[in-house]
Amino acid sequence: MSEKILHISSRDNPALQRLRKLSQDGSAYRKLGGVWLEGDHLARACLQRGHAVTLAVLTEEGAQNPALRALADAAPRQLIVPAVLFKGISGLESPAQIGFEIPVEARQDLSPGLDTVVLDRLQDAGNVGTILRNAAAFGFKQVLALKGTAALWSPKVLRAGMGAHFGLRLIEGLSPADLDALQVPLIATSSYAESQIHQLALPKPCAWVMGHEGQGVQAELMQRCALTVGIPQPGGEESLNVGSAAAICLYESARQRLA
Amino acid sequence: MSEKILHISSRDNPALQRLRKLSQDGSAYRKLGGVWLEGDHLARACLQRGHAVTLAVLTEEGAQNPALRALADAAPRQLIVPAVLFKGISGLESPAQIGFEIPVEARQDLSPGLDTVVLDRLQDAGNVGTILRNAAAFGFKQVLALKGTAALWSPKVLRAGMGAHFGLRLIEGLSPADLDALQVPLIATSSYAESQIHQLALPKPCAWVMGHEGQGVQAELMQRCALTVGIPQPGGEESLNVGSAAAICLYESARQRLA
Repeated sequence: MSEKILHISSRDNPALQRLRKLSQDGSAYRKLGGVWLEGDHLARACLQRGHAVTLAVLTEEGAQNPALRALADAAPRQLIVPAVLFKGISGLESPAQIGFEIPVEARQDLSPGLDTVVLDRLQDAGNVGTILRNAAAFGFKQVLALKGTAALWSPKVLRAGMGAHFGLRLIEGLSPADLDALQVPLIATSSYAESQIHQLALPKPCAWVMGHEGQGVQAELMQRCALTVGIPQPGGEESLNVGSAAAICLYESARQRLA
Repeated sequence: MSEKILHISSRDNPALQRLRKLSQDGSAYRKLGGVWLEGDHLARACLQRGHAVTLAVLTEEGAQNPALRALADAAPRQLIVPAVLFKGISGLESPAQIGFEIPVEARQDLSPGLDTVVLDRLQDAGNVGTILRNAAAFGFKQVLALKGTAALWSPKVLRAGMGAHFGLRLIEGLSPADLDALQVPLIATSSYAESQIHQLALPKPCAWVMGHEGQGVQAELMQRCALTVGIPQPGGEESLNVGSAAAICLYESARQRLA
């Protein structure tokens, strides 16, 4: 395999320049068609789910590690770089020893009839990644992001998603009207709802709608919801973090189906 | 009230130097006995819960705002500072117009018999704040942090907690053996548990134990748990974020009690 392995020592190498751009601009993948991911956990999750890999990058130290070499061998091209160059394409305080560039297509064709999570203009990358992880854990295989939501494949969301991306059908840039094609009942949470989540038989399949951290669900989307439910809060606090609310909604759907 | 209001224009003012230290060092409150919090939401939550305030700081712009003036009037002393000085004590990219210093005591006396959440060496301030918010929402009024957990009153945890701190009994620096005084059954989650959370009648009161993001619950604490439970994950993913796991555990306790 040696012919596909290149040792790079210049930060002006075009492949590294491209990776720097992907690392620094969380939505650059939408133009460039590729995503940069770091660390052996994400690299392994990507391969286990059969996702394609364009390029592997190893530090010189990483190239001495048989487990990381085995991961890198899944890529058609490998770059081996000094630690200082890897640091330049890393978004981490403690850079990893391995990273992949993977191809990502901006898909627009949502699948009707699937259990789905809808993200309405969520801003925080950590919240978005947490919700993708929750969706994967509870078997909701499709996540639809409305225009204005944080970029789903940005490095920060990828890290918070811990590999969940590779088991999900992810579609971005939708408008509320696009959701009419989904053909499953939309459910939103609301502190004004008459019924609480544990008192209702939740529909199956369904689509849970999670709203903007400050503004909640926009009116045009709320009008399309078949159901609104409250989450009981016997402590009387005003609201839950949206990642926690999503965890509870998806768990409650799973619980009712298992019961 | 004018005699208690000071206009400050020097960054060397001792009160501002103290606030800079509290803002920059997340655990400085343990030595200095005071906490710096920013923004009208946290300031209001603090007053609503009857927490004492030592000092209010307003920007010159904030001092023109009647609602912020009313909040500041709750403090025995007020400083009015130019925006550039406020920025120096702010931990936010977009600094607020108001902040409080509040007194915080390092309490060591846990209350036996209360519904409780135990934090075992959690590292991430966002996770800790999210869990405090979940605890407050579901009526678990006491949170006990073992040695090695992120500082509960650090500015980052305060922000993520969104005011939950002021309704909770918070105790830090505990060892596993200290929990013997709690006298309620400890429950941990585990992917190896024989029973799943929705299949069991959960004890009331109880203490949910949340473990380190990477290492989980330490052995000395796990031995003290009366119960371990799994969270069903029909999607087959490996794990949930600890904030999401806490949301589900606390919700399930609340759901069973309401049912």
